[in-house]
Amino acid sequence: MDLTRAAAEALDAADELAGFRARFAGTEDDGPDRLLYLDGNSLGRMPLDTPAALARVVEEQWAQGLIGSWATWIGGATRLGDVLAAGVLGARPGEVLVGDSTSVNLFKLLVAGAAARPGRDVLVCCADDFPTDRYVVAGVAETRGMTVRELPADLDQGLDPAVLAAALDERVAVVVLSHVAYRSGALADLPAITRAAHDVGALVLWDLSHSAGAVPVELTDAGADLAVGCTYKYLNGGPGSPAFLYVRRELQEQLRSPIQGWFGQRDQFAMGPVYDPAPGIERFGVGTPPVLAMAAVEMGARLVADAGVERLAAKGRRMTALMVDLAEAWLAPHGVRLASPREPERRGSHITLAHPAAWQLTQALIDRQVVPDFRTPDRVRLGPAPLYTRFVDVWDAMDRFRAVLADGAFERYPAELSRVT
Amino acid sequence: MDLTRAAAEALDAADELAGFRARFAGTEDDGPDRLLYLDGNSLGRMPLDTPAALARVVEEQWAQGLIGSWATWIGGATRLGDVLAAGVLGARPGEVLVGDSTSVNLFKLLVAGAAARPGRDVLVCCADDFPTDRYVVAGVAETRGMTVRELPADLDQGLDPAVLAAALDERVAVVVLSHVAYRSGALADLPAITRAAHDVGALVLWDLSHSAGAVPVELTDAGADLAVGCTYKYLNGGPGSPAFLYVRRELQEQLRSPIQGWFGQRDQFAMGPVYDPAPGIERFGVGTPPVLAMAAVEMGARLVADAGVERLAAKGRRMTALMVDLAEAWLAPHGVRLASPREPERRGSHITLAHPAAWQLTQALIDRQVVPDFRTPDRVRLGPAPLYTRFVDVWDAMDRFRAVLADGAFERYPAELSRVT
Repeated sequence: MDLTRAAAEALDAADELAGFRARFAGTEDDGPDRLLYLDGNSLGRMPLDTPAALARVVEEQWAQGLIGSWATWIGGATRLGDVLAAGVLGARPGEVLVGDSTSVNLFKLLVAGAAARPGRDVLVCCADDFPTDRYVVAGVAETRGMTVRELPADLDQGLDPAVLAAALDERVAVVVLSHVAYRSGALADLPAITRAAHDVGALVLWDLSHSAGAVPVELTDAGADLAVGCTYKYLNGGPGSPAFLYVRRELQEQLRSPIQGWFGQRDQFAMGPVYDPAPGIERFGVGTPPVLAMAAVEMGARLVADAGVERLAAKGRRMTALMVDLAEAWLAPHGVRLASPREPERRGSHITLAHPAAWQLTQALIDRQVVPDFRTPDRVRLGPAPLYTRFVDVWDAMDRFRAVLADGAFERYPAELSRVT
Repeated sequence: MDLTRAAAEALDAADELAGFRARFAGTEDDGPDRLLYLDGNSLGRMPLDTPAALARVVEEQWAQGLIGSWATWIGGATRLGDVLAAGVLGARPGEVLVGDSTSVNLFKLLVAGAAARPGRDVLVCCADDFPTDRYVVAGVAETRGMTVRELPADLDQGLDPAVLAAALDERVAVVVLSHVAYRSGALADLPAITRAAHDVGALVLWDLSHSAGAVPVELTDAGADLAVGCTYKYLNGGPGSPAFLYVRRELQEQLRSPIQGWFGQRDQFAMGPVYDPAPGIERFGVGTPPVLAMAAVEMGARLVADAGVERLAAKGRRMTALMVDLAEAWLAPHGVRLASPREPERRGSHITLAHPAAWQLTQALIDRQVVPDFRTPDRVRLGPAPLYTRFVDVWDAMDRFRAVLADGAFERYPAELSRVT
């Protein structure tokens, strides 16, 4: 790969997604000292259409329409779910619902899935999965008297399919796994793992938080059972925006949410005496949907759908490949090591670099207007979101990273961890 | 009571809360055909400060501060909880957390409370409680192999304390009850019921959805154990705004959330291997808090706190008393019956009227710019929110109600229920 800045500029000139950048806040500054935001995998940028969408809900529908606006809002969680299903998740209408947090949705579907596999007493998860996934699995297992098989994973390469295969047997009720590993970006083979689990009669509950909007998911084609994910990363829904959940159509009637809320009730406004789960995906609803926050999610999700996940993923692979090449050329001599799969097709849209002073480097980079993410124990995570990051942004960020390493100034930053993100 | 409009005008002139009205959208029209909104107990009006608060979070903190704004956002769920604790709920700092929905919070605290009373196998609730309360109780009971004592209640007068007393014994783990009944507005004696439950060693989990911001709650003084509630009614947080939960300080270390999310974890960003609940109220957190939606909740909650719950409740009692007097004078001859406690101190800030054609009346009222709430089976619910409703609004609404009954036009509306709120 040509590692000149001119080559990066040429990639931008040929980028068919380049036009999307102007639809996000904070992208207008093109000066040499501009902010280089490589943390869209943690909190995506704000779509410029979002404030108007919020104003429509707040200042028109709420302020003026008042309670009557529920005629507009009702069913919004499934309508927005259908937008995600078609444009982001490769699912069918009526298979995706928006609401609650990823953790709450994980809990609901894990309990429901485990109950749908009676007589099985094992849950499988990965020791390097995102904390909330592991904690929810542990809690559900304890409550239900189940055993957790927490599989060891390589922090850089993700879960070895052979390790997973060896853990699958007829005792397994549900496997919980992230599609893209939050630390390394390692991409799991969703269709193959789904098939392997089905071969022993188990269900798989996918956490798509780091893959939705970054790589193709294709839940229907894979025969996926269950999934959850967040919308504030590649879907640009805003801080703490509501999550989504997916349940394969054929499974819905077999599953019941453990949290029997009135938004999961059939004929909800009859307010009947006994809980009777709604038909379809709505049975996984609980409380009143977050109307206001969903308006922001819709704006972000529509941009991803418009761009097309395949194109986003292809650009993401090219950007992280450039990043890897630059890291090997410029940063490796300073002791930086790639802590992600080397092959672009084996990862999502972010990579992670390891260095003993990763936390100090993170602080120094932020002071140079490069925003990565620190991840324990010694990792700098870099996520160039394909919707609004350019190849020259990647090039410039790595150039500043090189400078930070070269001048040694990062060593003056505190080594003790204090940051809260 | 003097039932002339002039008397209502005089009450408004003497109202020390009158100035708050101008701080809500939609209150500037003072014409004879203006909208008379009596559904603030279902969805409160929009505070005029809310759009700017949202813009600050969206267009400044999110759009410009990006991930760095988490330094501002982190801890927001407890900070906002403290605002509610001090200004609305009569609780101490560190006892209230904002996030999730009322239903999800009810589930978390009910499971946690039941587990804290091992050996007890009964949950108590009320057959006329809001659906989500009854459904969540039923679900938790089924999962845990517990029995539900669903107590019969008078639809107009609420739960008879003697009926509750008779249901309390040493088998009871948790009593779930609404402080203000959603249909009739009947106010339960929170301190007395709490004491009665404690006498048999049981916990009480209060649903404050229809009382928070409407009547004094005083959780600390009552020695209350657990509570949840919504923020989109009298707290004016917007459609589907996040809920709150309260756990008495002395109980917190004994309780564990059944949903072990990463926002309930001690030293969260260490991302450690094992779930270890945070000390204090934060252990009841689950996923990433709804930052954007919480900004709207804060605006609404601060207005209630500024006005003072005691003053709001006093005005609410006077308004509903006027409403009752007008209903008896004007509507009773047309077959309308009060379906709420007659004594103002026995109810929250809404009343309910019964009439066989309640649904048709509701539609006719809405067409006359009076917005009540229909509630099954034959009820029209009227909630004059003291923050922005005037005595003349009550008078005019009842005057239009009288006209709707007198001209018989309501009979032309469809009798079959179709509305979705």
